[in-house]
Order: sequence, then structure tokens, then C-alpha cells
Amino acid sequence: MCSVFLISLIGEDWIFFFLLGILMGLTSWAMELGINMLLKGQKWVYGRLDSNGFLQYLGWVGYSVALIVFSAGFTQIVSPQAAGSGISEMKTILRGVLLKEYLTFRTFVAKVISLAFALGSGMPLGKEAPFVHIASLCGALLCKLPVFRGIYENESRYREMLAAACAVGVGCVLAAPVGGVLFSIEVTFTFFAVRSYWRGFFSVTIAAFFFRVLAVWYKDEETVTALFRTHFQVDFPFDLKEMPAFALLGIISGFGGALFVYLNRRIALFIKKQKLFNTFLMKKCLVYPVMVSFLISSLLFPSGFGQFMAGELTQNEALVTLLDNRTWTKDGIAEEFDYIGNARVWMHPQVTVFGTLALFTIMRFWMCALAITMPVPYGAFMPVLVIGAGLGRLVGECMAYWFPEGIHAGHAIYPIVPGGYAVVGAAALSGAVSHSFSTVVMVLELTGQISHLLPALIAVVLANLVAQSLQPSIYDSIIKIKKLPYLPELGWGQHEVYNIRVEDIMVRDVQYITLSCSYRDLLNILMKSRLKALPLLKSAESMILLGSIERTQLQSLLSQQLSCARRLQCIKERGAEAKKLLSTESNPPSNNNSSLQTGPEEGHIQVRGHRRTHALSFTLVDLQITDWEARQLDERVNFNNCKINPALIQLLECTSLHKTYTIFSLLGLDHAYVTRIGRLIGVVSIKELRKAIDGSMTLKGVKVAPPMATFRNSSLSSSQNETTYLQAVRPPEEHVTDAPKHVC
Amino acid sequence: MCSVFLISLIGEDWIFFFLLGILMGLTSWAMELGINMLLKGQKWVYGRLDSNGFLQYLGWVGYSVALIVFSAGFTQIVSPQAAGSGISEMKTILRGVLLKEYLTFRTFVAKVISLAFALGSGMPLGKEAPFVHIASLCGALLCKLPVFRGIYENESRYREMLAAACAVGVGCVLAAPVGGVLFSIEVTFTFFAVRSYWRGFFSVTIAAFFFRVLAVWYKDEETVTALFRTHFQVDFPFDLKEMPAFALLGIISGFGGALFVYLNRRIALFIKKQKLFNTFLMKKCLVYPVMVSFLISSLLFPSGFGQFMAGELTQNEALVTLLDNRTWTKDGIAEEFDYIGNARVWMHPQVTVFGTLALFTIMRFWMCALAITMPVPYGAFMPVLVIGAGLGRLVGECMAYWFPEGIHAGHAIYPIVPGGYAVVGAAALSGAVSHSFSTVVMVLELTGQISHLLPALIAVVLANLVAQSLQPSIYDSIIKIKKLPYLPELGWGQHEVYNIRVEDIMVRDVQYITLSCSYRDLLNILMKSRLKALPLLKSAESMILLGSIERTQLQSLLSQQLSCARRLQCIKERGAEAKKLLSTESNPPSNNNSSLQTGPEEGHIQVRGHRRTHALSFTLVDLQITDWEARQLDERVNFNNCKINPALIQLLECTSLHKTYTIFSLLGLDHAYVTRIGRLIGVVSIKELRKAIDGSMTLKGVKVAPPMATFRNSSLSSSQNETTYLQAVRPPEEHVTDAPKHVC
Repeated sequence: MCSVFLISLIGEDWIFFFLLGILMGLTSWAMELGINMLLKGQKWVYGRLDSNGFLQYLGWVGYSVALIVFSAGFTQIVSPQAAGSGISEMKTILRGVLLKEYLTFRTFVAKVISLAFALGSGMPLGKEAPFVHIASLCGALLCKLPVFRGIYENESRYREMLAAACAVGVGCVLAAPVGGVLFSIEVTFTFFAVRSYWRGFFSVTIAAFFFRVLAVWYKDEETVTALFRTHFQVDFPFDLKEMPAFALLGIISGFGGALFVYLNRRIALFIKKQKLFNTFLMKKCLVYPVMVSFLISSLLFPSGFGQFMAGELTQNEALVTLLDNRTWTKDGIAEEFDYIGNARVWMHPQVTVFGTLALFTIMRFWMCALAITMPVPYGAFMPVLVIGAGLGRLVGECMAYWFPEGIHAGHAIYPIVPGGYAVVGAAALSGAVSHSFSTVVMVLELTGQISHLLPALIAVVLANLVAQSLQPSIYDSIIKIKKLPYLPELGWGQHEVYNIRVEDIMVRDVQYITLSCSYRDLLNILMKSRLKALPLLKSAESMILLGSIERTQLQSLLSQQLSCARRLQCIKERGAEAKKLLSTESNPPSNNNSSLQTGPEEGHIQVRGHRRTHALSFTLVDLQITDWEARQLDERVNFNNCKINPALIQLLECTSLHKTYTIFSLLGLDHAYVTRIGRLIGVVSIKELRKAIDGSMTLKGVKVAPPMATFRNSSLSSSQNETTYLQAVRPPEEHVTDAPKHVC
Repeated sequence: MCSVFLISLIGEDWIFFFLLGILMGLTSWAMELGINMLLKGQKWVYGRLDSNGFLQYLGWVGYSVALIVFSAGFTQIVSPQAAGSGISEMKTILRGVLLKEYLTFRTFVAKVISLAFALGSGMPLGKEAPFVHIASLCGALLCKLPVFRGIYENESRYREMLAAACAVGVGCVLAAPVGGVLFSIEVTFTFFAVRSYWRGFFSVTIAAFFFRVLAVWYKDEETVTALFRTHFQVDFPFDLKEMPAFALLGIISGFGGALFVYLNRRIALFIKKQKLFNTFLMKKCLVYPVMVSFLISSLLFPSGFGQFMAGELTQNEALVTLLDNRTWTKDGIAEEFDYIGNARVWMHPQVTVFGTLALFTIMRFWMCALAITMPVPYGAFMPVLVIGAGLGRLVGECMAYWFPEGIHAGHAIYPIVPGGYAVVGAAALSGAVSHSFSTVVMVLELTGQISHLLPALIAVVLANLVAQSLQPSIYDSIIKIKKLPYLPELGWGQHEVYNIRVEDIMVRDVQYITLSCSYRDLLNILMKSRLKALPLLKSAESMILLGSIERTQLQSLLSQQLSCARRLQCIKERGAEAKKLLSTESNPPSNNNSSLQTGPEEGHIQVRGHRRTHALSFTLVDLQITDWEARQLDERVNFNNCKINPALIQLLECTSLHKTYTIFSLLGLDHAYVTRIGRLIGVVSIKELRKAIDGSMTLKGVKVAPPMATFRNSSLSSSQNETTYLQAVRPPEEHVTDAPKHVC
């Protein structure tokens, strides 16, 4: 009672997002705690077993493998939908496609626990992308509470809430509220409501605050700070003359990002294709993660190969050292000074700093691309960020080597800050892999210093330019691998989308049902087509579109018509008839039954019919059934009590591909009918749209625009393109449906 | 040739946004230079005339008034559309409403020059909002270049470019690229495409880079830095225990923001209402700005009242001092230390620091609300930011007074940093006035320090909560004052929008034309209705919607039918007829004209007719015209060569208000027809939608939801709400248009 009053006073939405914030803050904090404990566990094992090298190796690798196996097994058993990043799936769900079991409590439990174990294993995995899924899960579960029943029951409101919840995801994890919200939006949406963005900000602020309060309470940190604080000098962080180096770093990151996506997809597709391998993996699904985690943790083993690539550091530790604001080399030789904390591992007697940094970058690069094919919950963002920081640091150290004197600016000399390059590299590579710009904001929030904003922006823009023109983002790539129903993003330079029209891509040969069709027609159409919904027309002549009916509805109509109940009913009726006939035979025909009293010939037939009835009941049952079915199928379909979906959006032949794309993505459509003044003339589904967009991509050098589009481009001016006049006026008595043409 | 090749290689879009970035960087830099020179001019005049107090006063005030008069006059003469912020107009334009003359070169010139003079006058005005307009102007003008012809000629592409250009605006001005893009998006859009956001980021990065390069070249700054650099300690900027103070600051700012919007609107409406005053202003349009600028600059006069409120500082100087990281008071008394630069003006022998800060805040508050009613280009963002900083500093200094020892956190003691409160206050008040969250990012970018992110976020969220529930944003308020055709934003707690349906708000009595109507019908409808477009139906019986025709098209149809040319034609024809008759009279009737040879009575009539012709030619011209017109009007309309716009979106009765709103804002619709299986049953225009949204707002305590909506709310479950069954199947022979009901 009290709560209802409170809710009506403050508003459901506010409370919803407040609770969501609290919940996410709590989840994030608890996971942080768990993962840190697990990571410390591995180091503890490693430290305790230092008497015996082999034992130590076994302990190190065994720990990782065990955790990954648990994670994969738990996911498999509790909810296989929890595997993967979840961003690809959320993208699909927000487009209006229902993915079953993706937003249940089981999935939530599986995702949180498996993710904690997967990250605790020390594999190069991140938790950012899964948190988009977790936030959506929290939102979806909150909606199911009795208090928020109203939200859950209204579909468009539910979807709006889900969208806002989605935006909360990343911001809660990285203590980068602003960048997090922006990142979540960028990677999940094509169009975004500013309303949802506000809600996301509200929720994420609550979450960040709560997270920090918890951290302070538990004496983790004295107060509220950035996660990976940098200490660059603020007065002169970099010079304009360093810009080419930052730009180059951006371009390298762009190629690197595209290569990462390509590599990951090749690995994933390779594993999918290997049939033998695949059935083996399917049967014993834990073999693959065991192999991968064994390989990676062996290479990372700190006393083995790991010593050349800082294998002993966790991702967070590595990032902290990479952002160090001192130069590690002087004239190419490692400087000897007091390294803060873990930075000493980068120095190796046999390998230079350049060597360890290069090994770190390259090895981690393919390891991460491999690791994110395991069937556990994973994110690629954080590992890529760390790899980018390594790359940036490498470039920075090279710069410091080439310009040992620093940069002369006016009357002062400023040294190179390799840590700044690490910040820029981190933003650029993660931006290139995820096709987003907000990594700039995230990185700045993470480091707590804004001084490298401009070089980071430039590097990210260049990295995106390169990466976007070579490969899809990692999330779109996963969508393609998983074959989820999604529309590709429109690329940068795709002008064709404005010139292609619906008539160029629509399917003209539409399967339809009419109000006057028979059950047989229905059966034929259901056998012929695999469409999820069929258009309902007034009649085949008028072609006037009334709406569409889902396949399941039609199937149930058909099965009702041929149902057991009706069969029994029929048999009963026949039985009754037969009995009556029998009784009329035993008792001589009287006047009370008019149908049996029509004349001598008919009476004769009747008797013979009666005999036949007997025969039928026992010997001709099969024939009778076929007969009955045939008659049932010839009946006209009864559309009573059948759900008819309206065709809210009707496209026109001259609607441009761009507009169609916009409408499809905005309203989450699956298909749309093309009409000409009420008459159905075609249908466009996501498939056609996807083909058209892919076809109009000039990336591969081959442009597959439909012939009509090119024709129009060259021969007609755009104003003519847009306007069609009613060329010949028909007398109004004529059938109007093929008279006027439309202006698009 | 070469440029065409280059463009096809790199892509038009990239080059477009690159050029836009360069152009914006240049414009921004040139304006910055001009404004600074003008501002220095006032100080120079003030300094030169210090021998005589009155002369000094005259010089100070005269300078301001002269600049404002020039600015207002220039705007009035060159392009009155340049006055105002421009955000409200851009919002409207991006919704698809064409505002004439808003995107021309004249307006660009007027806006840039007038803005520079208005800001140079020292009035509390800003240049952020006008830069949204300037960026859009640049974008629109670039589109008109022959190279980008392709963009300009395709409407949807043009609008997309405009949207992205709009996002570039603020980022170029404040050296806050990220926050600027976000701010522009927040205040201009309801839905935005992530594509546009990327493009905006690209362009703004170019602009920011170019701006900085220019600044370095001209030795303004040694390198690339934040505009209002702060120097707070990074290790412990604030304690969790200070959070309530930050939250309070947020809430105060929320009320302040709402009050600001309210005050501004009251002033603007007051001036609009004063009829006498208004005509006076209209005639001599410069009287009002003279009065306002005289009043404000008199109060700011540094040797007069201005000394108590730091009147001598420009906005930028004031902001720099307010962000000072030292405490100005010790036990309530002004500290005596070396003030950096201008900070000394805040100390006054008669007034405490609290006094000057309070006076500064309050006086500037109403001054700004007043100043932005002048007919010059203006923005409210920067002055409000400065006022917010003043408010924050005041709260901070109070905190430092109450907790002179600082805050005990664990084993250490940290002093209060009033400058941090100034940062938070600036973000909160500007966020409250503009209803945006991105002010957080902007303020952090401006100060170059990210340390106060969390308190700023919390304050901005609270400020927005308060302000959004009390008043519209300043931009929406201006839209209301100017009565621009725009849809209000959906508020936070408006659940009614999900329950109201189109049938509750649509206009059922639709004016329409049919294919078979006469010109008289057309005339009647044009006289009766004031609609911009009229629906075209197949016939009044079938009510099948074919599309709509614009009013101007119909008017031209009508005027063509009654045109001079046709009149002359008719007169000529008659003349020819008359001549023929005359000739037949002089030459006796022969067999060559069958029509004149029908019988004696008719011959008789003919001769009488001939006489009548003579009479008509001279005496009955008037009657003849009326007669001719009447006959012309009775003809059936010839819709040949008439543009027919298709009804791409057809709403259904059961479409929810929320969905309708979404479709309208996304596709920039003006009106949409409501159909039931092709038949027109109503129309919804922006007006109805606006009414419905305002009506469903519960802000004023009175809820005006339509009766049907409430009925549905209580009696039907939501699933029933969403689904309607085909209750009674009609035999297919029946007219189908009123048979099946739809599922929404």
C-alpha cells in the first residue's frame, strides 16, 4: 500500500532505474571482489609451489583450466544462452526479434557465475560486453516484479526500458559512467532515443555511486578515484609535432582492429566447419575450452615463456604499468630506477623492453582472438584495451628512443611521455575493434586525466576510418557467425542506399491467402512457403491487403479443421445416421422422416446405401477418411477468431532503400508489404534488405547495384526521381487502383 | 576531374565532414579573435578615461550599447532569422518543417557578425547555442557546392547531413569536442542515428584540431590545452561525506534552472503582450536592446555597483577565477594571499566574499534571463555556466567556513576545495536550464580535470530531476514562445502515452477531395479548410485513400482552370464563332456547315443568336464572365500533372500515442491519415498529438486523459488491449472494408 503510494508519487520509471542502478552496482562490486579473489588464488598457488618447477607449472595451468572448465560446464548445464558476449544478442533483441531464454533468471545466474570464473582464470577475457547483457537481464527481471507489472505488460514500454537498461551495462563495470553509457549505446543501437540516454545516465550514476560507496565501506580504496590513475604532467602533455606519431598509431590500430575481427571470425568459422571435430566438441563440449585454456596458460606461465611477455601480470596490473608516466628506456637500454610495483617484469636480461612489449602485444593479440571462441561468457573489450596500451607504449618507447632529447617547443624542451601513447593506443585499438568513438571518453575516465583528449580523438577517428572500411565490428562479426537475424550497419560511403528503391529489391511473387480461400489452398501455401506470416487479401482479383496472419495461426486453423474432435464428431454423426437407417429398415418407412420418403427409386438406393453403410463401417474406413478429409479441405476457411496483424507500415515501390532501412531499424520490423493504393504488389523482408545493403557495399571493389538503380542514376535528374506525375488521367469510373502514381 | 576522382575514391561524406570541420574550426577561431578584441576594447576605453568618473561611465556604457545596437541593427537589416539562439529553429527544421531563410548565406553572415558584436559588448550572452545554428548553416551551404550537389538534391541524405552538422556545433566552440557533440545531440534531437553521431565526432575532431593549430600558429597558446584549466589535487579531490553538499547544490541548481526558464519566458511574453510597447518596438526596433543593454552595462560598471559583483570581469575571466583551487576565506574573512590574476576583484573592503559571490550570482541570473530576450543572436549556455560556477563557489566557500578543519577521512584530513563546488555547480545549473546531462562531460573537458566526475554526475542528475518536472528546457520554452511547430518532449513519468490510442485523439471529420470532384468542390474545400494538404480519395463511397495533394497544387489547378489564358482562349473562340456567324449571315447559308443547316426554327434562333452575340460583345460581358466561370467550375477536376503525395505511414485506430509520437518524431511527419483497410477514417496532425501529450502530462496535477483511455486502463488486460479478433466473419462477397479488425 505504502509502496504503491510512493511509486505513484515519484513515478515508476525513476524507482525502476534507481533499483536497477543499485542492483548493477551491487552485482558489479560483488563480481569485482570474486574475480580478484580468484586471480589472487592463482598467484598464491604459483607462489606456494615455487620449490618444484614442474609442479609450479601444473598448478598454474591446472588452476586456469579448472576454472575455465567449471565456467564452460556451468554455462552448458544451467543456461547455454549465457555464453558469449551478449551484445550481439541484445542488438538482435532490441531490433524486435525474440530470442528465447536470453532474459531469464537462469541465464542471469549462469552469466554472473560463469563470467566470474572465466575471468578469474587469467585468460585474456573482459567483462564489459557481458555486462551489457547482465544489465539487460537485471532490467528484464526487475520488470517482472509485481510492482513493475505495468511496464512488463506493455510491449513498447518494456522494450524502451530494456533499451535504457542496456545503456547502463558498461558504465557500471569500468567506473567510467559517461563513456560506458556512450559505449553501450554505440555498440547496441542504430537509432537511439535521447530519453533512454537520460535514463541510462541516471541509472549509471546511481550504480557508480553505490559501487564506490561499497568500495569505501570495505576499505578497498580510501575514497572515490579513477581505476587506472595516470600522473602525466598537465601543463604540457604532448606537442603538436607529435601528432603524426599519434596519427600513425591510430592507423596501425585500425589495421590491427580489422585483423583481430578477421582472425577471430576465421577461427570461429574454422571450428564450426570441422565436422568431425565439431561432433567431438559437441559430445564432449569441454574439450575445446580445455585445449584453448591449456595452450594460453602454458604460454603465459611466468617462469616459462611468460617471462618474456609479462605473463605474470593480470590485465589490470599490466594496464597500470603500461600507463606509467616515466620512460622505460634511455638510449635503448632499460633505465635503472625504482619501478612502481610490477613494472619491473617488463625488463628482462635477455630481451630489451621493445622485445617484451612487442611479444606482449603480438602474443596477447592472437590469444585473445582465440580465447573469445570458447563457450564461456566473455568480453573482448578489456583485453583489446590492454593490447592497445601495449602497442601504444611500444610506439611511445620508440619515439623516446628516436627523440631522446624530447621535443623542442618554442624556448622549452619537453620529453616524450610513452604512457600518453599507451593511453592513445588503448583508445584506438579498442575503438577499432568495436567500431566506436566513445572509447576515448572511457579511457580518459579510466585514467582520470583528460590531457590526451585531442591525440586520442584523432587516433580513434583514424582507427575507425581504417577498421570500418575493412571489417565489420566484432559484435556484428559475431552476429554473422551466429547467423542471428540482424540488419548490417550502413557504412560510411554508401550513397547507393539513397538511389536504390524498394521496387528494385522487393519480392514480387508473394504467397498470399484470400478471405475466400479453401483449407486446401491454405495447406498448399503452408507446404510451399516457409514464411512466418502470410498476407491476407480481400480477393485474388482486387489484391487489396487486409493484414497478415501468422503461420502458427494458420496451422492451428488447419489442424482444427482436421482435428480428432471433428473426426469423432463426424463418425458419431455417421453412426447416428447409420443407426437411423438401420432402424428405418427394421421399422417400415413411415412419414416422419421426409428425407427417406422421396420415391421408389430413391428408396431402393436407400436400402442399397444402408447396406453400403454397413460395409463402410468395417471395410472402407480408410477410403472414407480420405474422402472426409478431401471434403473438409474443400471447405472455405473460417477466419473467425483468427488474429490478423495489421500492415501498419506499407512501403511504396519508390521508397528509397535508405528510408526502408530506417523504418525497419526504428520500428524493429521483420518484413513489410509493398502496396500500390491498397493493392499488394510485393514484400520486402530483412533478408532482401540485408542482401541489398551488402550488395551495394563497394568495399570489395565490386558494386552490385540493381540495374534499375544505375539506370535512374544516369538518366534522370533527382527531382524527377522524387516526383512522379499522374501521367494519364483516367476517367474516374475506371478502376482506380492502377491509375495514379505516387510521389516518394 | 581530379577532384571528382578524389571524391569517388575517399567518399563524399568524409570530404564533406572534413571540410565542415575545417570551416567550423576557422569560423570559431576567427570569432574568438574578434570577440576578444572587442572585449579588450571596452577595457581599454575604461582604462583611458579613468580621469573622469562620468566620462568613464559614459564610455563603458556607450561601448556596450553601441555594439548591441550595431548587432541588433545588422541582424534586422541583413537577416532577421539570425536573431535568437537557433537551437529551437534547428529542432524544428530537423523535424522536417521547412523554415524559410534559416539556412541561407545571408543568415550565415548576419549570424556570425552580429554574434561577434553582441558578445563583444560584454552582455551576459553565450555563443554555444548559436554555433549549433552556424554549424548547420555551414553544412547547408557546403551542400550547395557543385561537388556535393548529390547530397543537396537527395532530401533524406541532405537531412542526415544537416543532423550530423548540427552535432558539430557546440564542440567547435568550447574546445570540448566530446561534450559538445553530446550536448548538441541532446538539445536538438529526440531520436538520433548512431551514424550521425560518428560523423559529428569526426568533424568535431577535425575542427578542434584545426582550431588548436591556428591558436598555436598565432602564438596565443604554446600548445594544446584545456580552456579553463583547474589545478585541484588529484589524489583526494573530495570525500564521500561531502556528497550531501553536492546533492544539495544539484537540487538548488534544479530549482534555479527552472526559475531561469520561467523568468525568461515571463519577460518574453510580457514584452510580446504589451501592444503599445510592441508597436513602438516594432517601429523602432532598436529601442528595446538599447534599454536592456543600458541597464545591464550600467549595473556592471566596475567603478559603480559593478565593484560589488566583479562587474569588471568578462565571463571567461570570471570563470577562471571561480575555478581557483584555493579557499578564498578563512574563518569568514578574506584570505590575504597572492591572487592569481583577476581573483582580487572578488574581495571588497565593505562586502565579504560571500556577499560578492551572492550578488554576482543573483544579479547575473536575472540579467542573463533579460539579455536573451534582445533581438540579437545569443546563447544562454555560457552565462548560465558562469552563474552556476558562482553558485557552486558560494556553496563551497560556505562549506569551507563551516568545516575550516576540512573533512576527516580515515587517518588523514583533507581541506574543502571550493573550486570543485564551482565545477559541480556550473555543470548542474547549465544542465538544469538545457535539460541535458552532457554538461558534465563539457565541464570536465573545459577544466581539463576529471576528478569531480561523480559529484558532478550526481548534481546534474538531481538538477535535471527537479528542473524537468517543473519547466520545459530553455529551448523548448523558446519554441513555445515563438509558436514553432514542434512536438513537446515526452516527460519522465508519462505512462498515459502507452494507453492512449489514435482513435482517442484523431479528427474524424476529415476534409477530402475525390477523383471525381468538380472544381467547385475544390473551391469550397479550399475556402472551408486551412489544411496544407488534402487527402485524395477514390470516391466518397469507397473512401479508399489514394494519397494527399498539397494546397498549393490544388490552388494552381483552380487558378489554371480560371486563368486569363483560358479566358482569352474562350473569348477568341467566341469571337471566331461570332465572326463565322456574321459571315454566314452576309453569305447566305450553304450546305458546307451542317450545324447551321438544321431547320427553319433553328435558323431563326441562329439569327437571334447572332444578334445576341453582338449584344454580348458589348453589353453583357459581366454576365458572360460569371456564366463562363460557373461552367468552368462545374467541370470535373483534371488531376493530370498534379503531384500526389503517397500516404507512406497509415496509422490504425488502435496505434498507441507512444508509437504515434515515435513515428512522427522519427520520420518528421506533419500529419498522418488513419485508415481501416484502405478506407480513410481520420487524420492526426502534430496539433492533436501536441494536445494529447500536453493533456496527458500530470505536471499541473490535472490529468486530461481521454475517457476511452481510462476505461481501457481499468477494464481490459493489456493483452486484450493489444489484440482484437475478427469477431464475425463476413462472407467474402460482402464489402470488405468494414469487416476485419486489426491487432495493434
